[in-house]
Amino acid sequence: MKYFLFPALLFLVFQLHGQSSDATTIRTIYDEALARGKSYEMLEYLTTKIGSRLSGSPGAAASVEWTRHIMQNFDFDSVWLQPVMVPHWERGQQEVGRVLNSKKMGTVELNVCALGNSIGTGPEGVTGNVVEVKSFDDLKRLGEKNIKGKIVFFNRPMDPTQIQTFTAYGGAVNQRGAGASEAAKYGAVGVIVRSMGINPEDYPHTGSLGYAPNVPKIPAIAVSTKHADLLSSLLKNDSGLQFYFETHCQIFPDAPSFNVVGQINGSEYKDEIIVVGGHLDSWDLAQGAHDDGTGCVQSIEALRIFKAMGYKPKRTIRAVMFMNEENGLRGGTEYAAQSALKKENHIAGIESDRGGFTPRGFTLSGTDAAKAKIRSWKNLFEPYGLTDFEQEGGGADISPLAPQGTTLIGFLPDSQRYFSYHHTPEDTFDKVDKRELELGAASMAALIYLIDMHGLK
Amino acid sequence: MKYFLFPALLFLVFQLHGQSSDATTIRTIYDEALARGKSYEMLEYLTTKIGSRLSGSPGAAASVEWTRHIMQNFDFDSVWLQPVMVPHWERGQQEVGRVLNSKKMGTVELNVCALGNSIGTGPEGVTGNVVEVKSFDDLKRLGEKNIKGKIVFFNRPMDPTQIQTFTAYGGAVNQRGAGASEAAKYGAVGVIVRSMGINPEDYPHTGSLGYAPNVPKIPAIAVSTKHADLLSSLLKNDSGLQFYFETHCQIFPDAPSFNVVGQINGSEYKDEIIVVGGHLDSWDLAQGAHDDGTGCVQSIEALRIFKAMGYKPKRTIRAVMFMNEENGLRGGTEYAAQSALKKENHIAGIESDRGGFTPRGFTLSGTDAAKAKIRSWKNLFEPYGLTDFEQEGGGADISPLAPQGTTLIGFLPDSQRYFSYHHTPEDTFDKVDKRELELGAASMAALIYLIDMHGLK
Repeated sequence: MKYFLFPALLFLVFQLHGQSSDATTIRTIYDEALARGKSYEMLEYLTTKIGSRLSGSPGAAASVEWTRHIMQNFDFDSVWLQPVMVPHWERGQQEVGRVLNSKKMGTVELNVCALGNSIGTGPEGVTGNVVEVKSFDDLKRLGEKNIKGKIVFFNRPMDPTQIQTFTAYGGAVNQRGAGASEAAKYGAVGVIVRSMGINPEDYPHTGSLGYAPNVPKIPAIAVSTKHADLLSSLLKNDSGLQFYFETHCQIFPDAPSFNVVGQINGSEYKDEIIVVGGHLDSWDLAQGAHDDGTGCVQSIEALRIFKAMGYKPKRTIRAVMFMNEENGLRGGTEYAAQSALKKENHIAGIESDRGGFTPRGFTLSGTDAAKAKIRSWKNLFEPYGLTDFEQEGGGADISPLAPQGTTLIGFLPDSQRYFSYHHTPEDTFDKVDKRELELGAASMAALIYLIDMHGLK
Repeated sequence: MKYFLFPALLFLVFQLHGQSSDATTIRTIYDEALARGKSYEMLEYLTTKIGSRLSGSPGAAASVEWTRHIMQNFDFDSVWLQPVMVPHWERGQQEVGRVLNSKKMGTVELNVCALGNSIGTGPEGVTGNVVEVKSFDDLKRLGEKNIKGKIVFFNRPMDPTQIQTFTAYGGAVNQRGAGASEAAKYGAVGVIVRSMGINPEDYPHTGSLGYAPNVPKIPAIAVSTKHADLLSSLLKNDSGLQFYFETHCQIFPDAPSFNVVGQINGSEYKDEIIVVGGHLDSWDLAQGAHDDGTGCVQSIEALRIFKAMGYKPKRTIRAVMFMNEENGLRGGTEYAAQSALKKENHIAGIESDRGGFTPRGFTLSGTDAAKAKIRSWKNLFEPYGLTDFEQEGGGADISPLAPQGTTLIGFLPDSQRYFSYHHTPEDTFDKVDKRELELGAASMAALIYLIDMHGLK
């Protein structure tokens, strides 16, 4: 009996040993990110030297070249550009949003900006009475007779009592995305959308709209949350007030651009790919720090950490800087299309596009078995403060990989500050905390390591 | 059998009902804080209209009067000032820290500030060679022959690989607190302490030192982390360089001040007190936002929320703005001393003094039974992101209540950004996120509610 171990006990010993060696490797990953990390200095360059990177802009082109160089300098096994045609929308000169003749305050200038992909009004602007609504149902109820020839003002706030701010965003963002076409169905001549901000703020939030087919395209602006409240209060006693707005945005022909891909080749199962990424494009109003410079540099950093540790992955690990998440998703779509053509096998995709804040966990989308396997690693993340592995979800850029059967994973940082910066002039480098950014990069690298070591089956 | 319920089942029904009614009340608490909260506007006034509030300063006096008014305006059952004599230290004019004659760079000005409670050098300053050390053991090893007449430079960094930044702080702060006296034992004429910052920064961190009895008092300054690295690199090739520093700080006679107390009377067990507090004093270099304006306004907000909800507590609930946490702890000490004289019974003390960041949990210090009871409520906090109830600890100002048998509880927010602001000119209102602050206030109110409803026995 002396040399006999019950198989179950043997399995337990193996498991304990495996977890403890995983714990050691993960500790090394965090140490590298926190003590010798490069994510923060990468982000500083990307946001303050290059700056905004809207698809088709010079900044976007510069960021493609720069991330290619960065990954080459880190000596990844291969680095390449994947061509993709992207929409090219430009804001043009500063917008005007003006209450012309309110009884209480006379003429009032409001803080507004054009929504991305919107047509512009041109120099003649749009003038009209304002109809305030909270929902598309309100439009239906009011009907063409109350809307035709007017400007529709969508003013349903993000719900501040939601603990997850993305839930509050999800409850309000259809006004921005579809409001223009919904209002145009009833003859509206323009729309004003309350900014997707959860706090009282002075600055407007841009972001994409989509025009529905076979509906007239009308121009759309966002107004700051404080000025949305002001406009609403002026309308209360003065439903006949006139509003004027002027936008100079234009849509140009599609432009050539690229996803940027860096890869470390797998040593054992090189055909099994784990992709990690963020989007390289950003809105034009700021530096694209939290949206999504952080996701890009964290993805590069994850691979850099493996190189620095001398870790040779069994599977192929790819960092992808997707182009055009903000106003087209062309990069994510093209990446998946090329992958399907080549019959690649992506076992997992990890996306970081919720800002560079303190990590709280990962959202998961895939088979029950894959999700259960990832959840079995929870205890390895607890010492680093990641406890939330229950939410469903992946990310926009990796979502086109779903038909491959890829397990889709979203990096989940703390969400409280995100919508103070998202799509606004406030999304700048100084809003990113070095340690929060680094902890995120380490958390992503740790999960990639576990998937690489143990697979998802 | 129809009307018969097994006692165990009955108990279960009661328990479920209890938890679900607690969950509903807690949801109402968070709704009030997030949708109609006052903590952010209170903090704006305290930090931007009053500003810094070092003990004995006009700002401290103004903040006493203002918090008294605020709590009276919220119609708490009683509001009073509790007198306490406090140390009165003043920084005086801007400090100078200067490398006089480095081989590599000649004269170099460094970013320094006097440590709180330090004596000043006066206009003649202190000049000397610099001995760099990492620990008190280094001092011992070097001995008087290498230290006498020189300036000791404590340069042990906070460990960036610690996930909890307070652990990193704990590993470095004895250099600031005791370094001057430890160096003076070997004849040093002054000390320079690497700032208690975890990142590379341009600005120094102040904070208290304590002089040991029967050791000569020597002046002490903090240097920014970047300039600590610079000084260290200059010393590497130039151990004979001369350093000059000049501080004009002075200690004045103790000054009269106050703790500010607001109370809602208990309806059932009025002699059982639950105290919640932060400290009203703050360092002179900034506005005292995260340290500890946030703790003060969160404590007031917790009581305001109960009033707004119409919740009548069974036990007496007190908000205390403690005076002089930073350089004396006189307020906390006096509060406990008065409480002991009056034979009061504090069943719990909750302190918020780790910044107004996203809540992660509470630290606990007390009997096993009390800690187990609080941990049994974990599931009620999970929907709000609080998952950490395992760490030991309370808080400085409530610690003198320990002999009463009070369960001591520390509000535990995310710690990553705290040491970028702590005791520096960066600790300003704009560094506080409205939602993070409000979630903290709600979390504190929720815990007070549970203790009030269910006790800690």
